[in-house]
Amino acid sequence: MKLFGFWRSLATLRVRIAMNLKGIERDEVMVDLMAGAQHAAEFRAINPQGVVPALIDGDGPPLFQSLAIIEYLEERFPQPPLLPADPRGRARVRGLAQVVACDAHPLIVPRVREYLERDLDADESQRLAWIRHWLGEGLRTIEAHLEDDADSGAYCHGDTATVADICLVSLAVGYRFFEGRLEEFPNAAAVVERCMAQDAFERAHPLRQPGAPHTR
Amino acid sequence: MKLFGFWRSLATLRVRIAMNLKGIERDEVMVDLMAGAQHAAEFRAINPQGVVPALIDGDGPPLFQSLAIIEYLEERFPQPPLLPADPRGRARVRGLAQVVACDAHPLIVPRVREYLERDLDADESQRLAWIRHWLGEGLRTIEAHLEDDADSGAYCHGDTATVADICLVSLAVGYRFFEGRLEEFPNAAAVVERCMAQDAFERAHPLRQPGAPHTR
Repeated sequence: MKLFGFWRSLATLRVRIAMNLKGIERDEVMVDLMAGAQHAAEFRAINPQGVVPALIDGDGPPLFQSLAIIEYLEERFPQPPLLPADPRGRARVRGLAQVVACDAHPLIVPRVREYLERDLDADESQRLAWIRHWLGEGLRTIEAHLEDDADSGAYCHGDTATVADICLVSLAVGYRFFEGRLEEFPNAAAVVERCMAQDAFERAHPLRQPGAPHTR
Repeated sequence: MKLFGFWRSLATLRVRIAMNLKGIERDEVMVDLMAGAQHAAEFRAINPQGVVPALIDGDGPPLFQSLAIIEYLEERFPQPPLLPADPRGRARVRGLAQVVACDAHPLIVPRVREYLERDLDADESQRLAWIRHWLGEGLRTIEAHLEDDADSGAYCHGDTATVADICLVSLAVGYRFFEGRLEEFPNAAAVVERCMAQDAFERAHPLRQPGAPHTR
């Protein structure tokens, strides 16, 4: 499979982790978001939205949106499962994943930060406050669920990693990147630590990808 | 089932349409977002994120996030299906739904508009421009898919309504509410018109709900 991504992209990180957990081989093409390569006609032909990730499996049309891609991988390669078996459990895991992938992360992506700077004159400290606020709100919600729900376990849902953990890790990586203090969310931080101790998560990390700065 | 929503909420609209299409009875509790009822401890106990919709089915814990709720309804009540049968088709429909529910709609919800006003001093015309920009970007992406993908039909995917159409309709309703011109996206506008001619879509409309202003 061919994955179009970028080292820094948190949505690509999610797909990378899912593929690692399921042992699916990939070639990853880096679309340089910092150089604007996502806006080129060549990439728009792959994903009209002009965002990463996009995934090509065989000769099928490109798949888009990280959670849709992960559900596809789950259906095509069911082992190990990234969703629980029961509908209520699946709903909870999908809900937690969407707290991140719908309500937190899309607010801080480059196109939004650029709009804040260009159209609303937000300076760097205002943009940083914005980023930390929305990623923090996502973490606060996940933390409340981890603390209160009977289904919480060693991971977000029970004792194996699901797509909720994949999304939580992407949120935590972003929060730390923008110097947020993950320790304020102790249950979430513990799940993230447990995940990052696994090779499938660790080698998907943005700073382990080609093109990333060597700061680790 | 008990649905916690609000007449104006576009995410609640999505769940309402899905329930109507599947013929699932509901009691809808209106959480007054304009009075801040979503922040009350009473509602936070139902959904810690403090947003609508939330759904309670029987004595189970509340379900949250509109797309997770719709996937749950799809698993529990498979007829009529709101997702195609094949994994690639499901991925495309979920991807289109997420273009709306992840990358467009969450940028314009009340909590974000309040942040823009309170912390970034955005005036009303700037907030309106922001809303139209992000909803418009979502429509532009859907339009490109409808125009170019072989799988497009009378609806977003083939000739029956799916969760992609549900999401597109929620986007279109919001765009019109903020005086955007849906006609700029002719393929999307045609799908929306086809949907709104159906009772299941029409009676889910925000302005048909209790508490809505009588402006239709």
